[in-house]
Amino acid sequence: MNYSDFFTGELDRLRDDGNYRVFADLQRKRGSFPQALNRDGDNKRDVTIWCSNDYLGMGQHEDVLGAMHDAIDTVGAGAGGTRNISGTTHQHVVLEQELADLHGKEAALLFTSGYVSNWAALGTLAARIPNCLVLSDALNHASMIEGIRHSRAECQRFRHNDVEHLEELLKAQPLDRPKLIAFESVYSMDGDIGPIEEICDLADKYNAMTYLDEVHAVGLYGPRGGGIAEERGLMDRLTVIEGTLGKAFGVMGGYIAASTALCDFIRSFASGFIFTTALPPAIAAGAAASVRHLKNSSFERAQQKQRVAQVRARLDAVGIPHTDNESHIIPVMVGDPVKCKYLSDILLKDHGIYIQPINYPTVPKGTERLRITPSPVHSQADIDNLVGALELLWSQCELARIPMAAQ
Amino acid sequence: MNYSDFFTGELDRLRDDGNYRVFADLQRKRGSFPQALNRDGDNKRDVTIWCSNDYLGMGQHEDVLGAMHDAIDTVGAGAGGTRNISGTTHQHVVLEQELADLHGKEAALLFTSGYVSNWAALGTLAARIPNCLVLSDALNHASMIEGIRHSRAECQRFRHNDVEHLEELLKAQPLDRPKLIAFESVYSMDGDIGPIEEICDLADKYNAMTYLDEVHAVGLYGPRGGGIAEERGLMDRLTVIEGTLGKAFGVMGGYIAASTALCDFIRSFASGFIFTTALPPAIAAGAAASVRHLKNSSFERAQQKQRVAQVRARLDAVGIPHTDNESHIIPVMVGDPVKCKYLSDILLKDHGIYIQPINYPTVPKGTERLRITPSPVHSQADIDNLVGALELLWSQCELARIPMAAQ
Repeated sequence: MNYSDFFTGELDRLRDDGNYRVFADLQRKRGSFPQALNRDGDNKRDVTIWCSNDYLGMGQHEDVLGAMHDAIDTVGAGAGGTRNISGTTHQHVVLEQELADLHGKEAALLFTSGYVSNWAALGTLAARIPNCLVLSDALNHASMIEGIRHSRAECQRFRHNDVEHLEELLKAQPLDRPKLIAFESVYSMDGDIGPIEEICDLADKYNAMTYLDEVHAVGLYGPRGGGIAEERGLMDRLTVIEGTLGKAFGVMGGYIAASTALCDFIRSFASGFIFTTALPPAIAAGAAASVRHLKNSSFERAQQKQRVAQVRARLDAVGIPHTDNESHIIPVMVGDPVKCKYLSDILLKDHGIYIQPINYPTVPKGTERLRITPSPVHSQADIDNLVGALELLWSQCELARIPMAAQ
Repeated sequence: MNYSDFFTGELDRLRDDGNYRVFADLQRKRGSFPQALNRDGDNKRDVTIWCSNDYLGMGQHEDVLGAMHDAIDTVGAGAGGTRNISGTTHQHVVLEQELADLHGKEAALLFTSGYVSNWAALGTLAARIPNCLVLSDALNHASMIEGIRHSRAECQRFRHNDVEHLEELLKAQPLDRPKLIAFESVYSMDGDIGPIEEICDLADKYNAMTYLDEVHAVGLYGPRGGGIAEERGLMDRLTVIEGTLGKAFGVMGGYIAASTALCDFIRSFASGFIFTTALPPAIAAGAAASVRHLKNSSFERAQQKQRVAQVRARLDAVGIPHTDNESHIIPVMVGDPVKCKYLSDILLKDHGIYIQPINYPTVPKGTERLRITPSPVHSQADIDNLVGALELLWSQCELARIPMAAQ
């Protein structure tokens, strides 16, 4: 066994398939985000970021930055320990209260990331509840899949957003068997939205718990930014709402909001919660400021909706095909990893537009795409540049256009 | 199935066993760490933290805080995406170079935490290398165990630090079978140190990879803070060195340092790396400043060694039993969860000394302890208070003392 040859061989295979990832080295410019400096070897260029999950530009918001500065000045850098061993700072306690309030739940529990929150919470629930059956949407995020897999509980996948299929599976089980339905509100790569109410109805009928991942919705939907479940008045019907502080809230970290007993259960038994250093107080403080701001301000949400509608309309006008959905995510389908990367490279090099190609394993092979996320901080000029560049590229590359007549 | 009753019942069981954890709500005071404000309901008290993993007080260092402030001012709060999708900022790139240099390796790869780095790196190596056998020290950290378990590769545990047992297991395998030996340098709860050189010898002899967790050693040992492997001149013999930025470096995050091909392999295939938002640039910048400082300054390490020796000598003088080891960790054994928690409560309430009781599942039942971590920022007065309080408590509680004559 030659380990080095093995690694090199696997990487070559990725390259041959067009799935080798090259990271763009970016340096944001505070105050002028989505503008950033892109370093490519010795080259530097100014670019506009069009694929960030800092959906509302809160990573640049003065309240957030101010809260981070304050926390650094008053308490320092890291937490210095796990939550249990000297790492619980007052900033964590306050943030958990903000999050419980955001979702109308008794309690919330912080994790170092959204990935870890899904992995640890689902992994612990499914492993610790005797004979638990997990019913998992077929397009759930990797972190949910890994958590469920880690639990070694039985898992049945239901077809994406298919409540009839879910009911079939539920119906086949004894009523008193513990069941956990895991699904998302906004699916990040297609931007479609799950049938939350119907799933809650089924959960009631078949005595199942519900676990809703709202990472691409918190901050963005609902009158206080509580997500799609808030917008639809369904928060109290869900057992667990999971969210992130690293996307619309602009900072870092993940969490669950649920009953006191459930949060305390995860807190007490989840390895991925117990055995890890807590988030730095400055991160918790910045996130709390962001959550607080978006509870009280709908300005950013309204601006974003308007920008998203504008970009969609402009793409339609020039016939660039994009998947329709109810969310803020605009997937421009390319369907080939090499072409997708090529388009992204040209956008970056010739047009100063940064949109990362989304290839396998993030999306299934054959559905490679450019995923565009307009935000309140994108200007009219940014939109003009984006649409102009895509139009030019679509002509040059002879990519399929939507027939103009069909619009 | 009543879910709520189930959670409550499990929590009651924990309480009955004395293993229910109560978090101490702390607020550090920058500039006067290890002093902090402890909130307990409406009560507030000043306490001295004696159980932090911010081993050198770097979480308060001006260079670290300055770098964090600068990054917030120049680039903002969060990274805004995964490393692949708009989340690689220049601060990540620079930090990875610092870490590769620290360990004399070609490359390094950042993760959101040390837990995730172990889980993702071990999980990916063991799962992806065909027919890989993992040989795991019996006292490895939970994050390593979970990573190995997640991989579903075959795992054989060798008795803690027992190279003869490890050789037995290696010898029984075909030479060309891929093998990965996973172990730690400083074991966090006992403070003992692994036989790194002997394990590297065996790895060479039996064609195995080595994976060394140095999270309780990086920053603290070796002329540049590269860990025990640096101190012993063994860094180049290890396949992977894993470390954290959340303990001696005082910030947050985890990493591996290894060959370019190995890091690229993990970067390309590890779910826990790919599908998670990158560390905030300010965290990366603060960590890089800390690593850089400790490469060039041995002052903090020397001060810490002196404080550790002092505390040990003073505990010996009054007959408080503590486990001897070569590291900076002083475990004062109590051996009972209820007594351990009681001692910790009294220390906090009556003496303003915060030492979290370490109970199951962090340590095996029956080995409950107070784990003391002296740092360069503990003063002579702090040490006097600590030893005085422990002496008083040991008398009051009639806990076993080392016979004075036996010293």
